[in-house]
Amino acid sequence: MTERRLDPLTGEWRMFASHRQDRTFLPPDEHCPLCPTRPGGPPTEIPLPSFDVVVFENRFPALVREPPAPAVAASELYPVAPSAGANEVVVYSDDHTFGIAQMDADRVARLVAVWADRYAELGARDEVAYVFIFENRGVAVGVTLHHPHGQIYAYPEIPPRPRLELEAARAHLAEHGTCVMCDVVGRERADGVRVVASNGSFLAFVPFAARYPYEVHIVSQRHAASLLDLSDPERLAFAELLQTVAAGYDRLFGFPLPYVMSMHQAPTDDGQHQAISHLHVELTPPHRSAERLKYLAGSELGAGAFINDTAPEDTAVRLRAAMSAVSA
Amino acid sequence: MTERRLDPLTGEWRMFASHRQDRTFLPPDEHCPLCPTRPGGPPTEIPLPSFDVVVFENRFPALVREPPAPAVAASELYPVAPSAGANEVVVYSDDHTFGIAQMDADRVARLVAVWADRYAELGARDEVAYVFIFENRGVAVGVTLHHPHGQIYAYPEIPPRPRLELEAARAHLAEHGTCVMCDVVGRERADGVRVVASNGSFLAFVPFAARYPYEVHIVSQRHAASLLDLSDPERLAFAELLQTVAAGYDRLFGFPLPYVMSMHQAPTDDGQHQAISHLHVELTPPHRSAERLKYLAGSELGAGAFINDTAPEDTAVRLRAAMSAVSA
Repeated sequence: MTERRLDPLTGEWRMFASHRQDRTFLPPDEHCPLCPTRPGGPPTEIPLPSFDVVVFENRFPALVREPPAPAVAASELYPVAPSAGANEVVVYSDDHTFGIAQMDADRVARLVAVWADRYAELGARDEVAYVFIFENRGVAVGVTLHHPHGQIYAYPEIPPRPRLELEAARAHLAEHGTCVMCDVVGRERADGVRVVASNGSFLAFVPFAARYPYEVHIVSQRHAASLLDLSDPERLAFAELLQTVAAGYDRLFGFPLPYVMSMHQAPTDDGQHQAISHLHVELTPPHRSAERLKYLAGSELGAGAFINDTAPEDTAVRLRAAMSAVSA
Repeated sequence: MTERRLDPLTGEWRMFASHRQDRTFLPPDEHCPLCPTRPGGPPTEIPLPSFDVVVFENRFPALVREPPAPAVAASELYPVAPSAGANEVVVYSDDHTFGIAQMDADRVARLVAVWADRYAELGARDEVAYVFIFENRGVAVGVTLHHPHGQIYAYPEIPPRPRLELEAARAHLAEHGTCVMCDVVGRERADGVRVVASNGSFLAFVPFAARYPYEVHIVSQRHAASLLDLSDPERLAFAELLQTVAAGYDRLFGFPLPYVMSMHQAPTDDGQHQAISHLHVELTPPHRSAERLKYLAGSELGAGAFINDTAPEDTAVRLRAAMSAVSA
């Protein structure tokens, strides 16, 4: 059963994929499916003895290029649709412990180039409206494979959270004539108190209304709607800051910090969102201290209202120290 | 620092409460702050030797009746507001292990009466727009105290998820002239395949577009906007079905199933939402099997798009068996 169903209570599409229940779950290192296939060793997902970056289709996808017909009948109250789109896996390196925090900026820039390529390729497909690049890292966010990797979901419509951001940006543009994220960047540069790292092209800061204590946004300082709008030096600057933040996160508490990384770019449906789409990465680590996690519970899941137990200006001080220790 | 900040990227209010970082965390049973104060024993939060149901203000609140002035200055881009409202704790019984699943229906009905009373009392306050009754149960959803209890948040505006439901209900009413949840109840009764338990007044079912594998909604079969619209027999029927579902959840895998319980009722701001508010409880257990949890990660947190690894019609079969074993 692979299909999408619309929730009539919220108007949101949900994905159903019952074969995913059987997906590979935290295999021992020697059976990692994302490691290269070593000569004489067992075959993995990747039939190569070594590689730089590899992209392939998820073996347990929720969205596919040629989806099966839905199993359940659609009705006006309960719309149903095929799971059109794509789920891809991006393996960052052939080394089981070599992730963004361990790479140099040039190596991260090659990953950025791959992301840009996949964004262009998937976004050009008729059935794809939104290309979402993300990384889940750590058992605390439900990772089932430890090998450094990210994922790309190509959705057939603009999903709820980007849609909400676009609506807010559209309202801001109508009222002020400016991109809201451009205004946020200007304000964060002026205030300075929430900035954790920066270079000439990108800014990393704890957002003013952060959902998570150690949430960081990495944002293009000039208006760029997607990775495709960046020059090569800008891509390198983006890679540098990603690396700085990832390495700083690992110094914060002295262990690899679990996080979800979400990249927001322009939808690819009709090209009508350039002025209100501003490339940014949202990093949301679940830790609220070295020992304790922030859980999403009643207020967040049932009401959608986040509670943050820290002041963004305070966590920014700690993050800035961790990030600058890396750069130094 | 206790204040609310508006996220300019989404238009959502977020709550900040830095004193919550120090809240009591999983104390040993003999130091439970929600147990009664036994003669000769140490004082707890509740200065009574025994009790039925107790409600008191959360010692670590994110919303309070007389909030302090925000610490940060507001601006047009970054609005800030006092944390007006209330956070209450509802202790279900004076027995450390006696929760809804263990009670008889009359006892649960007394809890329902307390909820109705608090909804009326908090909702009548000028600064309160939405009264949200919920329960977090189990370490898997971040519970910090095991003693059976729930919470009530009185928000100063309608929070994001109820707002989304109201918008969808308003659009449905405009198009079809009916309450969307009334239509859902009719459809679920007719289909039957997702129903897990029912009585004359309430229906429990796995929603057609469930976010979680074992998600269950308990819904009033006739249109009722809040607990205040229920007759005494209807309140008892609601209590019965809550008890059946809670006890069935505990039989499903043979251990107390963690869950978040969220009750959605009419906003209390202006009384203009009666036709589009339909009383229901959403139970969202994080387990996708006895051993494994569903985690909210990239697609859910970054895109707002849920993936469910099960068919609601399949999990309904298992839940129905667990619920009917209880009733029998």
